Amino acid sequence: MNKRINLLVFSGDYDKALAALILANGAKELNMDVTIFFAFWGLLILRDENKSALKRKSFFERMFSLFTPKGVENLTLSRMNMGGIGQKMLKKMMQDKNKPMLKDFLDGARKKGVKFYGCKLSQEVMGFSKEELIPEVEIIDVYEYLKDALESEIQLFI
Amino acid sequence: MNKRINLLVFSGDYDKALAALILANGAKELNMDVTIFFAFWGLLILRDENKSALKRKSFFERMFSLFTPKGVENLTLSRMNMGGIGQKMLKKMMQDKNKPMLKDFLDGARKKGVKFYGCKLSQEVMGFSKEELIPEVEIIDVYEYLKDALESEIQLFI
Amino acid sequence: MNKRINLLVFSGDYDKALAALILANGAKELNMDVTIFFAFWGLLILRDENKSALKRKSFFERMFSLFTPKGVENLTLSRMNMGGIGQKMLKKMMQDKNKPMLKDFLDGARKKGVKFYGCKLSQEVMGFSKEELIPEVEIIDVYEYLKDALESEIQLFI
Repeated sequence: MNKRINLLVFSGDYDKALAALILANGAKELNMDVTIFFAFWGLLILRDENKSALKRKSFFERMFSLFTPKGVENLTLSRMNMGGIGQKMLKKMMQDKNKPMLKDFLDGARKKGVKFYGCKLSQEVMGFSKEELIPEVEIIDVYEYLKDALESEIQLFI
Repeated sequence: MNKRINLLVFSGDYDKALAALILANGAKELNMDVTIFFAFWGLLILRDENKSALKRKSFFERMFSLFTPKGVENLTLSRMNMGGIGQKMLKKMMQDKNKPMLKDFLDGARKKGVKFYGCKLSQEVMGFSKEELIPEVEIIDVYEYLKDALESEIQLFI
Repeated sequence: MNKRINLLVFSGDYDKALAALILANGAKELNMDVTIFFAFWGLLILRDENKSALKRKSFFERMFSLFTPKGVENLTLSRMNMGGIGQKMLKKMMQDKNKPMLKDFLDGARKKGVKFYGCKLSQEVMGFSKEELIPEVEIIDVYEYLKDALESEIQLFI
């Protein structure tokens, strides 16, 4: 049976999302099973750039949706973001070294069959409908996360 | 024997504390043994709202005590806190969906028998006396944390 | 065989570096094998204070090198840093209680034989040459990190 890694991605920062998805891609290339449980700010990583459902949202949900980044390449850095300058600088440094962008690592993970879970409670509180997220996402609760984590060799909270 | 989860809660952010305590409650409901080791900012989660011991503190300890939040519902968000507006907005969104607050999850964890440990070094440095923390807390050192973590199926640093 | 702990240190914050190195020292004292994989901002912890190689850097690499802290005692706090005041206050509180500083825990880990790994991708993107880092560091990729983590009893993402 394949070894398993289970990532709980709580953060919605560009750099931490990058770390999570580099780990996910790397683990898949080593023939490991990979599940990522996106909770809280982590759900921002799963937003589908081309979809939104502002009409059906409450006032706070609409505010939240408008004031948080849409599309992974617009996520901010966990530090030195400096109003976006730091993030652009990092991306430029990655391009200079011919490294893939966050979007590429996300697409790679989707293609390689990484299992994407979204946290039910977070999704309800933030008011993101399933249609606003990338189609691979399955919404599960904390019990299902824990059961999956128990069957994994590596568990990380990112 | 029950499966075990061990959480090292380093953060004192409202949202991360919420994540930790939702995991703790969920694991208990799955009949798992749960221990949380609160270190550094995480100790702020354990402050008893109704107690303080300012008189016996040094100048820096008193400053630290006064400038950090007291009572879990006053913790700040890890991002989008915006001077407290973001935190209030999140709490409003949770209430709109009839979700429990952080205080409820903390109380739930206490009632369900989650084991609360406080980090000795952090407690000494920050100058929090045991009486300022909720009564369930037992103060341990890093060796005891590591031994507990070694006996657990899941370990997370939050 | 010794029990193993594997830390992925993503953060370059003073307080989180402190947590990681206290865990590393404690685990070594319990006769555990300890590996730390420093990725992203974590590489800042490994910068050798006495060396730099600004001349051979690109414009962005030079900027990055100049605007990030050099030497562990200059790292900033993950919260309440307040332009360095919070960090100085924390260090004063640690000294008042006769606790070792971050530099001491780093030196302790080096002497005790903690295995230091640096992330290849991060090192290339940030433009840190191997000579700018402390000599114990070995540069590895994500696959080698994952293999090491799979053989460890405890894995944490800090």
